[in-house]
Amino acid sequence: MPKQNIYDNQTFFEGYKKIRENEDNANNIFEMPALFSLLPELNGKKILDLGCGFGEHCVQYVQMGAEKVVGIDISEKMLRTATEENSDPKIKYINMPMEDIDKLDEKFDVVISSLAFHYVEDFSGVVKNIYSLLNDGGVFVFSQEHPLNTCHTGGDRWTRDENGNKVHLNLKNYCIEKENESSWFVDDVKKYHRMFSTIVNTLIESGFFVEKMIEPTPDEDIIKKYPKYKDLCHKPDFLVIKAVKR
Amino acid sequence: MPKQNIYDNQTFFEGYKKIRENEDNANNIFEMPALFSLLPELNGKKILDLGCGFGEHCVQYVQMGAEKVVGIDISEKMLRTATEENSDPKIKYINMPMEDIDKLDEKFDVVISSLAFHYVEDFSGVVKNIYSLLNDGGVFVFSQEHPLNTCHTGGDRWTRDENGNKVHLNLKNYCIEKENESSWFVDDVKKYHRMFSTIVNTLIESGFFVEKMIEPTPDEDIIKKYPKYKDLCHKPDFLVIKAVKR
Repeated sequence: MPKQNIYDNQTFFEGYKKIRENEDNANNIFEMPALFSLLPELNGKKILDLGCGFGEHCVQYVQMGAEKVVGIDISEKMLRTATEENSDPKIKYINMPMEDIDKLDEKFDVVISSLAFHYVEDFSGVVKNIYSLLNDGGVFVFSQEHPLNTCHTGGDRWTRDENGNKVHLNLKNYCIEKENESSWFVDDVKKYHRMFSTIVNTLIESGFFVEKMIEPTPDEDIIKKYPKYKDLCHKPDFLVIKAVKR
Repeated sequence: MPKQNIYDNQTFFEGYKKIRENEDNANNIFEMPALFSLLPELNGKKILDLGCGFGEHCVQYVQMGAEKVVGIDISEKMLRTATEENSDPKIKYINMPMEDIDKLDEKFDVVISSLAFHYVEDFSGVVKNIYSLLNDGGVFVFSQEHPLNTCHTGGDRWTRDENGNKVHLNLKNYCIEKENESSWFVDDVKKYHRMFSTIVNTLIESGFFVEKMIEPTPDEDIIKKYPKYKDLCHKPDFLVIKAVKR
């Protein structure tokens, strides 16, 4: 099965790098705080970061006391930036699709993945491998695009009023789990839609205990500071989950 | 806090009784099979049925070998029918809002609730009481309206094409958890919207281990037999969860 490596596409890469540089992007305001709020104590721990991209999170894990961080990513381009900008003696970057992590020959205390699983077709296979790579009582924390996002397949995602404000989400085919192509900087970005129940059941069936989940939503302070996020009352952009190896 | 007792409204009661008599209603095709598929072995067990209504499920639990079934419901009218049509020496019906189950002075092996929790404001309080009423290792299985349903607050729920077919769900305010009034036989039926994550986290925080969840969807055979259900590809009507007392 060919694994998608959209981040090595130059147009995608540049577009992505640019939005990540905006401080008020949704990742910084919603996804990162939720993800980090679910992390256990990292002091002295061995961490695996799946889809580490530019390695910004890896550096933070070291700053939080991690003994060792292994960051893997399918994109050579992303890892080149990671090596240039986010190197540390405690971090090792490996160019590898996350579908191949069964080839790693060490164990970890914490596996973390930020916004990568919606690009992965075989979620169940990856989760099983994560379970095997974790020490007993190990923690698995990940974020992904919200299932109300990944089911979108084209056409208008929103119905807007005459002023361009979002009135409601045009929700279609939430119950049809499949590969959906979408446009994000380039055409044909493949995302894999899975229902909420499928994501949770996959974790449980692999032996994990689901400990907490967050669908990040803006509170009043955030809406006051960033009015553009008021439309997030209709649909969260992200889903963040903490699971523990039983 | 006043507890809603909409089933004692005569208009509601008659409307509800009539749709439950149609064999191809969504409860029979989707909700009941999912709920029953998550039940543990009931042989010799003590069962509590929250919001038992007409008592049809209670009778089935006895047929499945339950030693004792306690069915509670806030509606006198519903329990009158239950007593007339679904009596059994092993079944005891109690007229009581489920918010008051802490007054029961016995323990149960299995607590089951079918399509009642979306009428309950204090979900967390009820879940805590269920945990207390269960024996160690006890099982809690429930269904409720799907969160993509309970967030609906008025206006058109669907956008339809010129032939009346559903094109997409008009999804609004999924992230706003509150009481929503809807019309179903009568006006002002109160439903309490909770996000997916809130439902799951409430169970976990109360001490439950979430074991499986189902968002029932039609397969090809069901769509062939009941073409009216093809629109359920857009949104499940129900959410069904099995949780175990740790």
